[in-house]
Amino acid sequence: MSTIAFIGLGHMGGPMAKNLLKAGHQVIAFDLVEASLKDVVQAGAKAAASAHHAVKGVDAVVTMLPAGQHVRAVYLGAIGILAAAAKGTLFIDSSTIDVDSARSVHTAAAEAGQEFVDAPVSGGTAGAAAGTLTFMSGGSDSAFARAKPILSAMGKNIVHAGGAGTGQAAKICNNMLLAISMIGVSEAFVLAEKLGLDAQRLFDIASTSSGQCWSLTSYCPVPGPVPASPANRDYKPGFAASLMLKDLKLSQAAAQGSGAATPLGAHATQLYALMDAAGKGGDDFSGIIRFLKGIR
Amino acid sequence: MSTIAFIGLGHMGGPMAKNLLKAGHQVIAFDLVEASLKDVVQAGAKAAASAHHAVKGVDAVVTMLPAGQHVRAVYLGAIGILAAAAKGTLFIDSSTIDVDSARSVHTAAAEAGQEFVDAPVSGGTAGAAAGTLTFMSGGSDSAFARAKPILSAMGKNIVHAGGAGTGQAAKICNNMLLAISMIGVSEAFVLAEKLGLDAQRLFDIASTSSGQCWSLTSYCPVPGPVPASPANRDYKPGFAASLMLKDLKLSQAAAQGSGAATPLGAHATQLYALMDAAGKGGDDFSGIIRFLKGIR
Amino acid sequence: MSTIAFIGLGHMGGPMAKNLLKAGHQVIAFDLVEASLKDVVQAGAKAAASAHHAVKGVDAVVTMLPAGQHVRAVYLGAIGILAAAAKGTLFIDSSTIDVDSARSVHTAAAEAGQEFVDAPVSGGTAGAAAGTLTFMSGGSDSAFARAKPILSAMGKNIVHAGGAGTGQAAKICNNMLLAISMIGVSEAFVLAEKLGLDAQRLFDIASTSSGQCWSLTSYCPVPGPVPASPANRDYKPGFAASLMLKDLKLSQAAAQGSGAATPLGAHATQLYALMDAAGKGGDDFSGIIRFLKGIR
Amino acid sequence: MSTIAFIGLGHMGGPMAKNLLKAGHQVIAFDLVEASLKDVVQAGAKAAASAHHAVKGVDAVVTMLPAGQHVRAVYLGAIGILAAAAKGTLFIDSSTIDVDSARSVHTAAAEAGQEFVDAPVSGGTAGAAAGTLTFMSGGSDSAFARAKPILSAMGKNIVHAGGAGTGQAAKICNNMLLAISMIGVSEAFVLAEKLGLDAQRLFDIASTSSGQCWSLTSYCPVPGPVPASPANRDYKPGFAASLMLKDLKLSQAAAQGSGAATPLGAHATQLYALMDAAGKGGDDFSGIIRFLKGIR
Repeated sequence: MSTIAFIGLGHMGGPMAKNLLKAGHQVIAFDLVEASLKDVVQAGAKAAASAHHAVKGVDAVVTMLPAGQHVRAVYLGAIGILAAAAKGTLFIDSSTIDVDSARSVHTAAAEAGQEFVDAPVSGGTAGAAAGTLTFMSGGSDSAFARAKPILSAMGKNIVHAGGAGTGQAAKICNNMLLAISMIGVSEAFVLAEKLGLDAQRLFDIASTSSGQCWSLTSYCPVPGPVPASPANRDYKPGFAASLMLKDLKLSQAAAQGSGAATPLGAHATQLYALMDAAGKGGDDFSGIIRFLKGIR
Repeated sequence: MSTIAFIGLGHMGGPMAKNLLKAGHQVIAFDLVEASLKDVVQAGAKAAASAHHAVKGVDAVVTMLPAGQHVRAVYLGAIGILAAAAKGTLFIDSSTIDVDSARSVHTAAAEAGQEFVDAPVSGGTAGAAAGTLTFMSGGSDSAFARAKPILSAMGKNIVHAGGAGTGQAAKICNNMLLAISMIGVSEAFVLAEKLGLDAQRLFDIASTSSGQCWSLTSYCPVPGPVPASPANRDYKPGFAASLMLKDLKLSQAAAQGSGAATPLGAHATQLYALMDAAGKGGDDFSGIIRFLKGIR
Repeated sequence: MSTIAFIGLGHMGGPMAKNLLKAGHQVIAFDLVEASLKDVVQAGAKAAASAHHAVKGVDAVVTMLPAGQHVRAVYLGAIGILAAAAKGTLFIDSSTIDVDSARSVHTAAAEAGQEFVDAPVSGGTAGAAAGTLTFMSGGSDSAFARAKPILSAMGKNIVHAGGAGTGQAAKICNNMLLAISMIGVSEAFVLAEKLGLDAQRLFDIASTSSGQCWSLTSYCPVPGPVPASPANRDYKPGFAASLMLKDLKLSQAAAQGSGAATPLGAHATQLYALMDAAGKGGDDFSGIIRFLKGIR
Repeated sequence: MSTIAFIGLGHMGGPMAKNLLKAGHQVIAFDLVEASLKDVVQAGAKAAASAHHAVKGVDAVVTMLPAGQHVRAVYLGAIGILAAAAKGTLFIDSSTIDVDSARSVHTAAAEAGQEFVDAPVSGGTAGAAAGTLTFMSGGSDSAFARAKPILSAMGKNIVHAGGAGTGQAAKICNNMLLAISMIGVSEAFVLAEKLGLDAQRLFDIASTSSGQCWSLTSYCPVPGPVPASPANRDYKPGFAASLMLKDLKLSQAAAQGSGAATPLGAHATQLYALMDAAGKGGDDFSGIIRFLKGIR
């Protein structure tokens, strides 16, 4: 078992840190929010006075922060955690952030003699609590090999996507595709309804045909065909539209930075932005079907 | 076994008529193109001098025509086949046409005392030859019950989508979703490449995650992951982009006529229109990935 | 002065017919709605029992109908007005309809020995009442020459766009561009507001720069810069979003029928469809800025 | 007359610095590219060994750099020019950069006791040479008042857009609108051509109607109507599509950062990205009409 610093103990980080404790690791915790820190300490972690203090002498560091600017602020510079930790420490950033920030931390980590893995998750707060997250990891083979047993304490599907930044890349590529296909499924149901084609019949036909996709067969945006989908509970998330919008924005920043044309990705981003502007960002992202129908 | 008139013996209709013959039906055939007619006659059909003549005294009629205007011209009016056939004849239109035309034929058939099923297919010329087409059928329960054994001689998946026009509706809803998800998959691969994420890795991750869809796992637009997909044979169709464009235009006509908002469907239509304008309409529709990359 | 049949006396046709009367023409009027007919008769027109009766022995016919299907129904066939009128009658259709319908009436008129001009208007009910409409006319030089003095009694800008159907083409090309530029202007104001750039400052800069357009400088979608614009009266139309949506649908039908790629036109159509679905089709089309902001 | 440091002497900065010299200012110049520096020195400027050295003891500083990262690198930090200059120096950044970077320099300038104006330009290399640029300036009234006489030596239209960052905001709002209206105009001409409506006729109609915009009447994307427009010289820029794409990307970064929905702006960005991917980024941005038509 290892000594692991955990920085960022919010809705995702808190339960993840507790799963490290459950697995027998020693956790040195830090968060700017007193209550979040206390909660993890009560579960067995040791509180640190700052991120800087937390990483002193640990084997590995896990960070779970809101955005690229926070990750850069915590990792980089003279008082950053890359500089504060002993050489050869393993750093795992599970935040979902822009690819450029992830890469600049990779570069800085290499310069500082540290190992780094960008390892964003999917699975939401339920997966964080249950320890069933999927981790998409970008980094060297050796760094991934060191990270895998730690990640396994918090998730059940630990994937090595490739080199620096590819964990973030894999997440935004997948989620951009997810958003597009969810809107596509929703449009098909909206059109079917207007044409007098029963939703269950469309489901039966498309789910066994070339229109089949996870958004249809595992997370159907109309009530009925998939009993567990949020459509059956008034679009209570699940995966909120505002969070999907965040991921879509990251995908578009990456597309524009790298010169990729992603027209439907850009369009999907705008549709979720309009849904969010209409005050429905807290609905599940499959609630886009209600936005398309003009339901308020 | 029945006596069946078959009108429209092109790339799809020809092999379909032959499968009716193989199943033991008697076929009275008509096509404006002499060579097409001859080909089916050599296989055992009897030639008629006109559509009007073909339907005299038959049990059922199958039509396979290019567009709604042809279907309306053949079926409707004083010299149309609805008027020419004996009352109670079963008509099956397997053309892919606009929903409005399909519905006007349904109405006219009812007024003429005929039974009618709109039954567009998927499966392409290969499916027509092999008798493995999927038929999406719209019409009354009794009409569908009569049509099913005939359709079964030409296809292996015979679906009842619902009432008048829902066969056409099911086809365009499914294919609009297919176009959207294919472009979505393509954009994900384009972005991944620009970000240094290997295509096979993205495939492995997305195909077991929320990005999974038929376009990815059965018809992958990048060479490699799915050996049978057109990407592995330089995007030779398969299902040509120009045909997908035709179906998308039908979906948009239906959406605008019925008041459905289908923003990504509209966008997908434009992208295939641009691909077609760039001279690539003959490529498989998965070749949209090359259009996105600017490959000429 | 001429004897003119006027068919279709709604919000636009009624005041147009009255302007013909004011100019000294004799008007034979018909409308299915009794009240509309009575209103024009009180202004001096003679009522006809049907469209068929109205056109007997007149010099010219003006029609103002809701959509292509109505125009085809009134003009074509054995009991249509093309057949009912004396040979050599001038027909002017001022309805805004699909290009295909306009062209089929042109063809039928030529076959019937009649002259025909498609002449849709812009200017709205206010322009109809004031006699200041713009007419965009498609037809032969001789037909246009005959139509011009009649149109001049109802409008002040009588344009010859070219041959058959180009009046309709000109209207939908202009209005598609108008919708696109209005949304573009609205997006610029939405972005400016979020960035802390004052609306009046943006107006001052863009109106004298490369962003200048009629939507900005004559019909500004934010209150203030252009006092007469609907933005200053809570987006009371003016030109209702639902009517813009109608014209956009006609543009997209024409684009898809003719093989033109119009990606922003398609996107604009969807945005107005979403605004309409959200219950705001009765607002002025410049109210799209509120839809973009999520205001309900 | 003032002593002015000028940093960044490329295609835009070089001629701008020369115009300062012509107006009688003393210029202390720096550029990483030796040849660019030499060119301005020959025109009368004094060379500095670094940006840091250039700003020592000057009255004002003008910077003209490629992107936000370069501006931040030159201005910020312990060795940045804000720290190197005497307190109370006026800084003018004429680079076109992201709003966030502009704002962070504003903040840093205030902390360092300096005055700062973000003042991006429009007018291109021709305007830079002729001294006819438009400057859109963001900053305090006092900073703008100091900047105005200096900017007047390089341009003819010096606009105060408002507070920090609004110069950049004004430029991207205007140029996003310009891109949208140029594509809109192009689509109208593409559709008109397919419908048999002559380009000159459409120009005549739309330019005096609600479709009027600068893209149509001053920079028409079809040859003929506006003799000076790039369409008449095979779309040689003018304003290259790749530069429009750069500005559009900045608009989208600002939109996503600030939470503005700009659907047509996003779509326009994608269309220019596709045109660029097709190898046509060097054409004038009005050449988008050829991309829409599929011309290679």
